[in-house]
Amino acid sequence: MAKGIAKRSEDYSRWYTDVIAAAKLADYSPIKGCMVIRPNGYALWERMQAALDKMFKETGHVNAYFPLFIPESFMKKEAEHVEGFAPECAVVTHGGGKKLEEPLIIRPTSETIIWSMYKKWIQSYRDLPILINQWANVVRWEMRTRLFLRTTEFLWQEGHTAHATAEEAEQETLKLLDVYTRFAKDYMAIPVIRGVKTEREKFAGALRTYCIEAMMQDKKALQAGTSHNLGQNFAKAFDVTFQDERGNLDFVYATSWGVSTRLIGAIIMSHGDDEGVIMPPKLAPIQVVIVPIWKSETEKNLILQRVEQLSIEWNGRFSFHVDEREGYRPGWKYNEWEQYGVPIRIEIGPKDLEQNHVILVRRDTQEKQSVEIGILTTTLEKTLDAIQMNLYKRSLKFREENSFYVDDYSEFKKQIEDPSGFFWLHWCGSPECENRLQEETKATIRCIPIDDNVCKEKGRCVICGGESNERVIVAKAY
Amino acid sequence: MAKGIAKRSEDYSRWYTDVIAAAKLADYSPIKGCMVIRPNGYALWERMQAALDKMFKETGHVNAYFPLFIPESFMKKEAEHVEGFAPECAVVTHGGGKKLEEPLIIRPTSETIIWSMYKKWIQSYRDLPILINQWANVVRWEMRTRLFLRTTEFLWQEGHTAHATAEEAEQETLKLLDVYTRFAKDYMAIPVIRGVKTEREKFAGALRTYCIEAMMQDKKALQAGTSHNLGQNFAKAFDVTFQDERGNLDFVYATSWGVSTRLIGAIIMSHGDDEGVIMPPKLAPIQVVIVPIWKSETEKNLILQRVEQLSIEWNGRFSFHVDEREGYRPGWKYNEWEQYGVPIRIEIGPKDLEQNHVILVRRDTQEKQSVEIGILTTTLEKTLDAIQMNLYKRSLKFREENSFYVDDYSEFKKQIEDPSGFFWLHWCGSPECENRLQEETKATIRCIPIDDNVCKEKGRCVICGGESNERVIVAKAY
Repeated sequence: MAKGIAKRSEDYSRWYTDVIAAAKLADYSPIKGCMVIRPNGYALWERMQAALDKMFKETGHVNAYFPLFIPESFMKKEAEHVEGFAPECAVVTHGGGKKLEEPLIIRPTSETIIWSMYKKWIQSYRDLPILINQWANVVRWEMRTRLFLRTTEFLWQEGHTAHATAEEAEQETLKLLDVYTRFAKDYMAIPVIRGVKTEREKFAGALRTYCIEAMMQDKKALQAGTSHNLGQNFAKAFDVTFQDERGNLDFVYATSWGVSTRLIGAIIMSHGDDEGVIMPPKLAPIQVVIVPIWKSETEKNLILQRVEQLSIEWNGRFSFHVDEREGYRPGWKYNEWEQYGVPIRIEIGPKDLEQNHVILVRRDTQEKQSVEIGILTTTLEKTLDAIQMNLYKRSLKFREENSFYVDDYSEFKKQIEDPSGFFWLHWCGSPECENRLQEETKATIRCIPIDDNVCKEKGRCVICGGESNERVIVAKAY
Repeated sequence: MAKGIAKRSEDYSRWYTDVIAAAKLADYSPIKGCMVIRPNGYALWERMQAALDKMFKETGHVNAYFPLFIPESFMKKEAEHVEGFAPECAVVTHGGGKKLEEPLIIRPTSETIIWSMYKKWIQSYRDLPILINQWANVVRWEMRTRLFLRTTEFLWQEGHTAHATAEEAEQETLKLLDVYTRFAKDYMAIPVIRGVKTEREKFAGALRTYCIEAMMQDKKALQAGTSHNLGQNFAKAFDVTFQDERGNLDFVYATSWGVSTRLIGAIIMSHGDDEGVIMPPKLAPIQVVIVPIWKSETEKNLILQRVEQLSIEWNGRFSFHVDEREGYRPGWKYNEWEQYGVPIRIEIGPKDLEQNHVILVRRDTQEKQSVEIGILTTTLEKTLDAIQMNLYKRSLKFREENSFYVDDYSEFKKQIEDPSGFFWLHWCGSPECENRLQEETKATIRCIPIDDNVCKEKGRCVICGGESNERVIVAKAY
């Protein structure tokens, strides 16, 4: 066990915060509920941003920036929206030394300010679609916060699109759900279940909310991204109409979708172990760390020289760092890079050089192997791929081992207590049963899955015994 | 003159806002003083960010993110700092439906929140230097705003570094001034004058503020970036000490430095003309636009096919866009791309194809030339370089033609009225003369230049006749 990190199996919650501290990903700030994203955490976020931004642009989106402030009256224009967000708002009442005529809300999400602008920009079908994304900070006043997972201020991206037809809006909503799913799988190495939220759990102001749900290592669910079909709700609230090709006026159709720095929490909780974080190679700020081992200045120079030669062919293929620090023992360095989650460590000493090999250590399995220098570069590339794949498979296996089909309510109530998991239950679709479920078990319906055919079987609601057309996923959640 | 754009020579101020509207760079928002950065403007900002971020990282800096909120009490810890920023603060008084115990300021700049964290992170010389940059939004309540140049909320980067010695802090301050100078020259194609601000004009809380000053096409000055040596002021305010190698305690030395979306305004006002914006090629989101000209479907297909063949070798060399839109005349398209400032336009019709050439039009000079298709790619690359160079040279020439050495105060008072310019004046160094200068002429001392040896000559203060060791730059400014 790494120094200062609680055992994951003994105190998951403390393990999580210990790991963040040890990896220097984030720190508590003096402002309640707000965190500081430290350089190690921000470097990860930058890589996540770069990958997502590329995917957004490849699907035709452009970035823009809208104001931080939203007039209070705007928030009230969409009834469900204000009801959902009002309790979480931070309010600016004074500016430039004077009391403001109308208080300003700090954006908890930007639908209202953006749709007030879309009203200016949209007149005709020629102005559609608008496919805009924004990278921004948002504020939601939270009582109980947790680093990355739930903080008063957080960083995210929010896409806001405008369309001429309901079909196009629905396609866009699903297209982005697909982008998020691929990002989770291919970059974060996290398997997710795609589904629709229940009416109760949908975004305030949406027609329909799609989501991706992931299982953390404590078997709880984490909502990792959402994509909303907003229908004409915001267009009606802000009176945004367009003239179609035949000259008819109609309200514009909308979507919005977002993921946040919460995903950093997902990575930590999906892959981390008792030694610290494990970065998926595709997002790791440093993919390979080289720890040279020397006893004399001569040895040091010799090794560093050799490492420099070797690393010439690494540029542009993967990111690496040579830990040349003086005054730290190799073991101390190993421990630090393990806490940081660097996927591969290379140890190289004078004897290794003589024998023309190095020691390669995989962060995910702790496996050590001796690698001949001649095949080092290709071995590194292959091993990075293998680690990426292994993290994904391991997470998928874990989820499968902790997913259960249960058809008896008292059986479910027993099982949902630790060790918990994902439960595929039949549900009649009524809010009453949904509420009762949560009150009695503290678990919620995470989503109505849309991919898995298995869940489409008919059955009886586990709560009331009423008819059910499909299974839904129930779990305790972050 | 492009439709809807005022003549630059007749109404510079209206020309500026017209050009921004025509190029769809930004729009006014419903919140007083806040703007929306539209996709065309944000794409430019993304390229500026990418170039600057690379330069910061090459000089050893890493990114992080600190909270948007600053407790009011923190702002008050550095006396000059609070005096400078208090009148511009936006204040959050309510959160989550309750009145806050302590009001929160929305960061106008982040020295105070960051130094409260540095206190946690710095104990020994081993923790130094800290070289952190942050990309963020900040809020300064402004009464008179202007798109990009002065808005209540704006985007910027702010570097905040911590050092063990005064010398190192000074070196860092100058290193970043150098980064900004190179960025202005090499990317924005804007020549700048490097200098030190007077005591009156320095950053609130700094020991010394360095700046880069540029001349706009209305001959006014624009402060394009600042780099502050903060000495031990913030370390003392937040009690941040470190133990040096000998075990002695000392306060840490600090710098901070920033540039903002104001630089977009600088690009518009340095290079734009009566047709619209002119993007410097190195920052242009689209560097080359191809406008195919067709009359029949057959012609269209033929041309688009040829363009696709040609463009295969363009990927990765420069960014381009093929304007395939139906229902717009070529002339209309030309006009739009001119307004957007795309550096090169390629016109290609059926006759051009037959003769195996295309028409290339430079945005900066409006020159048209026929280019043989065989040498098109290299011609495009060379022309992009030539445009970048020409924009810089043109701006430099303009500044030189409008810079004057004046040694007589009444002569200066006459000349500072339109057409104005940069005036190299002798100044005794007294705040009294500095104040009188501004009161009587509305011009300010922009900086005490640090590069030009010419200004180091001795002379007599143009206001009081006292001794002066060097000339300073006086101009009206944004």
